[in-house]
Amino acid sequence: MTTAQVDPAVHPAAHPAWLPEAAFAPLGSRRIAVEIAEREWSRLEAEVAATVRAEVEAAVATHGGAVVTPDDAPDLVLAVIAHNDRDAEAFTVARTNGVTRVTAATPRGLLYGLFHVVRLGEAAFEHGDLDVERHAPATSLRMLDHWDNIVVHPAMGQVERGYSGGSIFYDDGVVREDLSRVAQYARLLAASGINRVAINNVNVGPLETRLIDDLLPDVVRIADVFRPYGITTHVSVSWASPVRLRGLPTSDPFSPEVRQWWAGAADRVWAAIPDFGGFVIKADSEGQPGPFAYGRTHADGANMLAAAVAPHGGLIHWRAFVYNHEQDWRDRKTDRAKAAFQHFAPYDGTFADNVIVQIKHGPLDFQVREATSPAIAAMPNTRVAAEFQVTTEYLGHQKHAVYLGRQWSELLSFPYWGEGSATMADIAVGRGPGGHAGGFAAVSNVGDDVFWTGHPFSQANLYAWGRLTWDPTADPIAILDEWTGLTFPGAPAEVRSTIHTILDESWETYEMYTAPLGVCFMVYPHTHYGPSPDGYEYTPWGTYHFADRDGVGVDRTVATGTGYTAQYPEPWSSVYESVETCPDELVLFFHHVPYTHVLHSGKTVIQHVYDTHFDGLERVRSSIAAWEAAAGEFPADLAARVTDRFAEQLRSTTDWRDIINTYFLRKSGIPDAQGRTIY
Amino acid sequence: MTTAQVDPAVHPAAHPAWLPEAAFAPLGSRRIAVEIAEREWSRLEAEVAATVRAEVEAAVATHGGAVVTPDDAPDLVLAVIAHNDRDAEAFTVARTNGVTRVTAATPRGLLYGLFHVVRLGEAAFEHGDLDVERHAPATSLRMLDHWDNIVVHPAMGQVERGYSGGSIFYDDGVVREDLSRVAQYARLLAASGINRVAINNVNVGPLETRLIDDLLPDVVRIADVFRPYGITTHVSVSWASPVRLRGLPTSDPFSPEVRQWWAGAADRVWAAIPDFGGFVIKADSEGQPGPFAYGRTHADGANMLAAAVAPHGGLIHWRAFVYNHEQDWRDRKTDRAKAAFQHFAPYDGTFADNVIVQIKHGPLDFQVREATSPAIAAMPNTRVAAEFQVTTEYLGHQKHAVYLGRQWSELLSFPYWGEGSATMADIAVGRGPGGHAGGFAAVSNVGDDVFWTGHPFSQANLYAWGRLTWDPTADPIAILDEWTGLTFPGAPAEVRSTIHTILDESWETYEMYTAPLGVCFMVYPHTHYGPSPDGYEYTPWGTYHFADRDGVGVDRTVATGTGYTAQYPEPWSSVYESVETCPDELVLFFHHVPYTHVLHSGKTVIQHVYDTHFDGLERVRSSIAAWEAAAGEFPADLAARVTDRFAEQLRSTTDWRDIINTYFLRKSGIPDAQGRTIY
Repeated sequence: MTTAQVDPAVHPAAHPAWLPEAAFAPLGSRRIAVEIAEREWSRLEAEVAATVRAEVEAAVATHGGAVVTPDDAPDLVLAVIAHNDRDAEAFTVARTNGVTRVTAATPRGLLYGLFHVVRLGEAAFEHGDLDVERHAPATSLRMLDHWDNIVVHPAMGQVERGYSGGSIFYDDGVVREDLSRVAQYARLLAASGINRVAINNVNVGPLETRLIDDLLPDVVRIADVFRPYGITTHVSVSWASPVRLRGLPTSDPFSPEVRQWWAGAADRVWAAIPDFGGFVIKADSEGQPGPFAYGRTHADGANMLAAAVAPHGGLIHWRAFVYNHEQDWRDRKTDRAKAAFQHFAPYDGTFADNVIVQIKHGPLDFQVREATSPAIAAMPNTRVAAEFQVTTEYLGHQKHAVYLGRQWSELLSFPYWGEGSATMADIAVGRGPGGHAGGFAAVSNVGDDVFWTGHPFSQANLYAWGRLTWDPTADPIAILDEWTGLTFPGAPAEVRSTIHTILDESWETYEMYTAPLGVCFMVYPHTHYGPSPDGYEYTPWGTYHFADRDGVGVDRTVATGTGYTAQYPEPWSSVYESVETCPDELVLFFHHVPYTHVLHSGKTVIQHVYDTHFDGLERVRSSIAAWEAAAGEFPADLAARVTDRFAEQLRSTTDWRDIINTYFLRKSGIPDAQGRTIY
Repeated sequence: MTTAQVDPAVHPAAHPAWLPEAAFAPLGSRRIAVEIAEREWSRLEAEVAATVRAEVEAAVATHGGAVVTPDDAPDLVLAVIAHNDRDAEAFTVARTNGVTRVTAATPRGLLYGLFHVVRLGEAAFEHGDLDVERHAPATSLRMLDHWDNIVVHPAMGQVERGYSGGSIFYDDGVVREDLSRVAQYARLLAASGINRVAINNVNVGPLETRLIDDLLPDVVRIADVFRPYGITTHVSVSWASPVRLRGLPTSDPFSPEVRQWWAGAADRVWAAIPDFGGFVIKADSEGQPGPFAYGRTHADGANMLAAAVAPHGGLIHWRAFVYNHEQDWRDRKTDRAKAAFQHFAPYDGTFADNVIVQIKHGPLDFQVREATSPAIAAMPNTRVAAEFQVTTEYLGHQKHAVYLGRQWSELLSFPYWGEGSATMADIAVGRGPGGHAGGFAAVSNVGDDVFWTGHPFSQANLYAWGRLTWDPTADPIAILDEWTGLTFPGAPAEVRSTIHTILDESWETYEMYTAPLGVCFMVYPHTHYGPSPDGYEYTPWGTYHFADRDGVGVDRTVATGTGYTAQYPEPWSSVYESVETCPDELVLFFHHVPYTHVLHSGKTVIQHVYDTHFDGLERVRSSIAAWEAAAGEFPADLAARVTDRFAEQLRSTTDWRDIINTYFLRKSGIPDAQGRTIY
């Protein structure tokens, strides 16, 4: 696999993540036939075909197998054949007479099939006959967004919310000469199921604005590295591009000059990269420019860009993360949670066909626990993408061991109209009421860190994200097992069991020791790491708990609060409106209640706070004990990193426990029923 | 005054501050004789003599006077004569037969006398005969410390706690080629009384460490600019210099190699600048290296440096700002306020004669209201400097109009052993129990801002600092009048009255709307601007209020608290120990009391909080009204800047009022007795 080789001078020891050589041993020791029908393949398909061949050749060269013809007693046949699967990325796998057979309609499908066989390992060759099993992705829109900047920001660093070093794409100020690590990344993504990558931050600086202009040749180079792995390149653009790049006096979407400028820009981009994906845009949000400045709507803005890219088959990912970040904490009726729905739902049905409205999974901002976004269910006539965050901005900065597969799975399966109804995932993949598909997008968590993700176990989040975009109904713990099997091939059983002990319920553990019962944002402003109970309580970014000596929580009811519950369809609107029916884990998200309010669990709110914070730390201690007992079974460099991270997690978790408990004890004056130490 | 001319290409319009040309009109329109006896003057005195002559020549050239001989009917004689005043900086002023006569033993004294005549204005020439009046500074150690870095720090900027732009000494990375603005600054300082400047931050980075090494020629250039104004140059050094600069394996003060290295370094520095002042050092503090690493004391460290500089007559300013900045907020017995005393008092009498222990005026960190430092009174056998902060780190970042003369005056006159006893100023100038003088030092507030200090009115703080170092007993409001008269010569009476309305009680106003009753640090961590009531409450930097639903304050008593009160001599130890005798303004600094505790004022603590916050904002509004009525009488560019600053002050003060009131209402549950709106 020469294209994925990493230049050791530049990246001395990039960790192989879930594609170590040993993971290819079961496949690489076999006799393998690759058949790819001669057709007029697109450049992408042709290059992916070459990738499949190269992967197979590298594997057999390493592990003693052979590339053979179909007639020469193969153990495995990988074949692109003419068939009528309308999904170009689908593949089938079957086993007959001791031969495992993977077929697909395209090289892309075959590449996914190849990685499927890698995942199966020996199991792919052990069984007798197996019926044909078809695998197809839930959506063709399986995207990662990079928040990488070309320049290193003096305060934010190079990767916004990046906890894994610098960018793999950019040196400070320029696109890297050596993109070999991007190639390795592309290969990892293909093996997890991702097929689209946006290569720069949605907060687009002056230099990054030029990616669709004089820096376009650099984008071409990056796209060339992604293409052989079936990955389409997207770019985040600035709404102000016509002003910044050409000195136009306006970015008004109704200005003929502006429309013309964007059409010309799209022409140039697609001329350079004919299979380019499209533009991602954050407009009128947190200081980014947008159509509001000209009295236009987000539909006006999105449709103007959509018209420019439509002739090329391009997409516009238009982010719905629009809210007033200069609100007044004194005004308890203003509710940031209501913003996306208010800004976008009224325009349902007015967006062009190639616009995808990209909506965060919750109404706030990737909290450990918040309600699901009602906006996602409010736009049946719009292509909606559900947006997630693989990087752990609010979940421990890849210093805490937190596996997010279970959180995502729970969110993706949220039935918006009640038990058995269409889920968040259904809506995103086009099986919602309106049948429009926007797919999935998430913020990547990788950087030029040797382990890619800071905490080596955070690799599992990136892997799980890819797998869940392919199949949102997959069991996240089974995905974790897959990741473990690939990342630590041939490891003893303790490795797998230790990973389970540490990660299976780590999301719930993190919730326990941080913000309770749907209270959000009890973090340090700006960094979003570590406990600061009042950190956001009096800021223009929104207010999240209103804790006083009597009670805590945000009243979002129609009856007495901000009225946010009305944004949900039934039954949730009623379920959330009533403190009697609201689930415990969201009670403070929807209601302001006394500390003595009794939860469905039978505990009071205040005792729940104390118990979960004491218990959360104990769970972290158990994880550490499990780690210490098994660390010797892991590779030494990886083990050293994990040990370091656990030291920080223990320190930080102790902070969380004591600061949150002390904060609420000082406010409520109610002692812990178990008499434990609260400072 | 060519040396003080500012290159207009570099600094297009640096404000003249308190030395506009017009301030020299009364003097410059006279017939002036300058007599400086021929003697073997030092280089500094010779250059100051030239400065006096140049000042006189420039003034008469501008304002129509003449330089004459003593026999040619002068209105003013400025004479250096042989007399036996043992204070080289002293001067006398007298008036006989219509001639005003200023004499001094040195050119330096004469320069101060000249500026005295400028301050007097027409009054210097209006009276009949006046008896000889002698003016001498309280101390020869009247210092400003610059926290300027050569390099621009990506987060802190160039000037640590600098709110006035970049450094006047340094471009990013190098000492400025054009130091003309430094010359203008030197002139302003001489006219206010300052005679020593440390030119770089006490947090010494790798580049700044080299100021005593290969960058020494740049220090020579800066010293050359200061010298003609009678100002001695000092440099902040890193304890780790031998390691950083020469790769020695240690900075142990007992290592012969280390001692030898420092002696050699001092030799080189004084060879280049024979009248160099000495080294300032922050050791073992907030992450800076120091002798603790080698098991040595601060006396060991200071005395080692002192030995190196003693042969050259150099001084070591050793900062006593040493505390544990990794303390545990859970531990209510640890008290940062106790640190300086604990670290230094035991070593009283062991410091070398040329060591000055520089102690902040309070035990914490330049808060709007904190107790006076007991360490200052605890070292009768040590030269102690009282350290202040002209830059308003905790007092509004030169965005709020806050005049500090009254605060400093109150602190300087604090009688450590009770009414009529030696004051803080007495101790600093050598009139304390031990008779050792360490003088005064303060952090400068200037930058390359056109008005020098961000808020134009913050110039008054710099001026007042200089004047108070010369005479700590001076009336701070009279100093403000002096500043106004010089800065706005010939301005209508409204200018003076407006300045008084805005600034006279602005320190008290700032205290009202920020942290009440001696509570400290209710600011945003790191920036120290804006209200964050719990900002430091759970941090390793120290904990400052312990507010809960029942009460607030830090118990620093011997009886039940941290025992800090025992660090004071009587009567203060007893006064502070008892909540009955503790002054209201410090009650929460020394005691934890219920919100219903009744102050000597007759109000409860909680009502005091509400009232001062409501009233504080009203006082700001009154200042703004006064400003708006008189803004037209001020120069337009200055008025525009002040108007901008007031807009921010109003916004910020409103934040303070509402956030502090809401914070305490939520905690205490006690409504405002006057029923005003608290959110």
